[in-house]
Amino acid sequence: MKYTAINFKDKLSKFNDHWAPRVIAELNNYQVKLAKVQGEFVWHDHPDTDEVFIVIDGVLDIEFRDGRVRLETGEMFVVPKGVEHKPVAENECQILLVEPGGTLNTGDTGSILTADNDVWI
Amino acid sequence: MKYTAINFKDKLSKFNDHWAPRVIAELNNYQVKLAKVQGEFVWHDHPDTDEVFIVIDGVLDIEFRDGRVRLETGEMFVVPKGVEHKPVAENECQILLVEPGGTLNTGDTGSILTADNDVWI
Repeated sequence: MKYTAINFKDKLSKFNDHWAPRVIAELNNYQVKLAKVQGEFVWHDHPDTDEVFIVIDGVLDIEFRDGRVRLETGEMFVVPKGVEHKPVAENECQILLVEPGGTLNTGDTGSILTADNDVWI
Repeated sequence: MKYTAINFKDKLSKFNDHWAPRVIAELNNYQVKLAKVQGEFVWHDHPDTDEVFIVIDGVLDIEFRDGRVRLETGEMFVVPKGVEHKPVAENECQILLVEPGGTLNTGDTGSILTADNDVWI
C-alpha cells in the first residue's frame, strides 16, 4: 500500500507513557504528534512558535498566568508563541499537537519532563 | 473569556456549503480549516506545500493518479506537495485541514470549485 491512512486510535494504542509526544506525520517542516497526558505539566513557553492542541479524547486544561482554557474532546486551542502555559489533565487525556519540527515539549525550560524529540510511532 | 476553546461541532454547525473551507485558527503562518465535502472534487495539486487532511466525521477518499487512500473518522493523511489528488466523498464528510495561509482549495487549478480564501468562521 503506497497510500496508508494514519489512524489516531491505532497509533495511541502503541504507547502508554505520559507527556512524551510521538510524531505521526510531517507537513513541510511541521510535525503532527500524539500524546497521552495526565497530571500537571510544567510551566513553559515556546519563544519561537505557536502550538496547536487538539483533544482527541478526554479533558485538557491549559493554564495561563492570567486565566485558563478547558478543552474537551473535539476542541482545540492555539497557544501563542512566548505565552507561558501549563497543561493539566485530571484524568488521562489523548491529544494531537501541531508545531514545527524540533519543538521541545517543555520549551526552553529544562525539566525532568523534557521528552526525547522526534520520536516517531 | 480571554481564552476560549474552539469547538469543531459548533463551528461546523455554522455553515453547510461543500468544498468551501472555513478558517478556525492560525498557527504561525499556517491555518487550521474546517470543511464539509460531498461528491467529487477536481484533480489538483499544491506545488509549494504539503496538505494535512483529518477526518472529523465521515469517510473521505483521496484519489491519486496511481492509487487512493480511504480516511475514516479519526484518521489523517498528508498529501505531499506537488502530488495530484482528487478528494471524493460519497456521503457528506467533515474534515479538518492544516496548511499554510493562502493555500487555495483547488491549488493552481482554476475551477468553479475554487473557494474564497481566508474565510473565517
